[in-house]
Amino acid sequence: VTSPAFPVVPALDESARAQALDRQAILTKPTGALGRLEELSVWLSAAQGVCPARVPSRIKVVLFAGDHGVAAAGVSAYPSEVTPQMVANFANGGAAVNVLADRVGATVRVVDMAVDADLADFGVAAEVSRWKVRRSSGRIDLEDALTHDETLRAIEAGIAIADEEIDAGADLLIPGDMGIGNTTPAAVLIGVLTGSDAAVVTGRGTGIDDATLARKTAIVAAAMQRAHGITDPVALLATVGGADFAAMAGFLAQAAVRRTPVLLDGLVSGAAALVAAQLAPGAQVWWRAGHRSVEPAHSLALETLGLQPILDLGLRLGEGSGALVAVPILVAAVDTLAGMATFGEANVSDRE
Amino acid sequence: VTSPAFPVVPALDESARAQALDRQAILTKPTGALGRLEELSVWLSAAQGVCPARVPSRIKVVLFAGDHGVAAAGVSAYPSEVTPQMVANFANGGAAVNVLADRVGATVRVVDMAVDADLADFGVAAEVSRWKVRRSSGRIDLEDALTHDETLRAIEAGIAIADEEIDAGADLLIPGDMGIGNTTPAAVLIGVLTGSDAAVVTGRGTGIDDATLARKTAIVAAAMQRAHGITDPVALLATVGGADFAAMAGFLAQAAVRRTPVLLDGLVSGAAALVAAQLAPGAQVWWRAGHRSVEPAHSLALETLGLQPILDLGLRLGEGSGALVAVPILVAAVDTLAGMATFGEANVSDRE
Repeated sequence: VTSPAFPVVPALDESARAQALDRQAILTKPTGALGRLEELSVWLSAAQGVCPARVPSRIKVVLFAGDHGVAAAGVSAYPSEVTPQMVANFANGGAAVNVLADRVGATVRVVDMAVDADLADFGVAAEVSRWKVRRSSGRIDLEDALTHDETLRAIEAGIAIADEEIDAGADLLIPGDMGIGNTTPAAVLIGVLTGSDAAVVTGRGTGIDDATLARKTAIVAAAMQRAHGITDPVALLATVGGADFAAMAGFLAQAAVRRTPVLLDGLVSGAAALVAAQLAPGAQVWWRAGHRSVEPAHSLALETLGLQPILDLGLRLGEGSGALVAVPILVAAVDTLAGMATFGEANVSDRE
Repeated sequence: VTSPAFPVVPALDESARAQALDRQAILTKPTGALGRLEELSVWLSAAQGVCPARVPSRIKVVLFAGDHGVAAAGVSAYPSEVTPQMVANFANGGAAVNVLADRVGATVRVVDMAVDADLADFGVAAEVSRWKVRRSSGRIDLEDALTHDETLRAIEAGIAIADEEIDAGADLLIPGDMGIGNTTPAAVLIGVLTGSDAAVVTGRGTGIDDATLARKTAIVAAAMQRAHGITDPVALLATVGGADFAAMAGFLAQAAVRRTPVLLDGLVSGAAALVAAQLAPGAQVWWRAGHRSVEPAHSLALETLGLQPILDLGLRLGEGSGALVAVPILVAAVDTLAGMATFGEANVSDRE
């Protein structure tokens, strides 16, 4: 056995789902007039096993940080030193994820899985690096990202972190990412798992120019070639992933096992989610997609997962930012389900 | 002169716009990575004349209610008695608009422009009907909706209400609508002002079946025929609009005159906005589109206005609901512009 053994993913609560659907039909509005809000309210009711669903009150962003050896090939507009600098920025509350989390009452936990630096040098607390597997990863166009053992340790870290957060009361989890170069392994994983060409899955990441995009595409193609024929998700993470991807995949799979709803973010979490759905088949029923990234591979990942993004705002930042922007939409869904009067309560006539 | 004389619409503040663009370029993220959030933050800074923009704190939904004679032709899934019943529901806080407004700290003012009932019979305060022009409207497939004088009084009511709310401190205005049958005049107005066919602009409103859709389409076509060749916006409102549309058009035009940003809602506010842009050319620079309705004519209206919707959630409720769901996106835009650290502050390296 090469993969961690995840239990069978539990089903959503069909009774709560049915109650929510019934309630949507008697609220003072034409049935279906709240569109996606109705669907989200029904989903969260089914996930929580209660109708109406409660507004999530302990929202946790777990931000998996890691560097990538492939950055040395010149696939990013930014140098790798930005990864630890941004981790320090997260710790100091200055990044987009912090600002967006504050507004919706979410908290942010940063996990250093493979940052290519000693974060103590950046004033970051040792706790952040408690689960660190290694510094950076192998250059995936030329060599494996991780050893098999490193990959398993990273997945187990993601599982343990999900358990910690859920045991502490988290009722909505959001995966975040930070790592210069991480859109390259994300594109590779999505390319392999959706059977798409390198030219289709490779995007501009942080904003690379045409020459860099051509180089990145060639590197994605080379890495996809190295991963050709690999079907085992652990082997795939070891070959072309990274410790941050492995941890996020374990985290997402375990959230489903633990019946905890997830709002996915963009490209990196889409790639990790595809792998997680291999580790724990059916896990995706516990997830919703916060937004559609401009990265082309992201739409492919969501389509394969059967998830329709809530927002489409042209975001391409990562960190969990897009999922956080979607939180108020989920809240609006719950608020309307729980707070609106019924036709009977309001003495409003239903359709003729 | 048949139209009220609106002053020239003031321009947005180009200095604040430039400052916001400059600030977006030095925040700790790749430039452009926050997509639409960046655009919204720049727009609101330019509208408020200050960078960074302030989070709107006095958000007002003004909900224009009115019945429509054309409802008697069987164009809706609901009876006209629902209009006063829903106005009472708004007063009692049980509708979607109330629940959504509460969450974002907005307040809701309902204005009875032409409800076909005495709202006192429904326990609604007399203040709500202070600006009432008449009960219902003419059947627009056969006769004019309003007289010229009624139309002018309704537009003036919308202007006066905008002035009242802005004088009271409103810093973001949202137009809402309620009125059984109102998607029919909305489709007609958009059909005329975008030069589109009745079959293209007619939608299912509250959820009508195929037979009703065919009847509604024929009625839209007949009303468009009656409006053929009319270019004056007041005459258009009198011929195929209604007092609720006229008031909302005056309200939206005056908001722009008074330099007050607006989040538009769905189909009805899209139709009123098209007319308002005729009353006060250029007013649309003060507006953003909260969402894209499933009603087909709405997209045509937004395209003609040059507005791209923030959300696309399959909503078709009206009331201002879609714009309210978009408020947190605007808030996220301001929060990130105002709250994120710069590269310099956070000691993060900018692109190479």
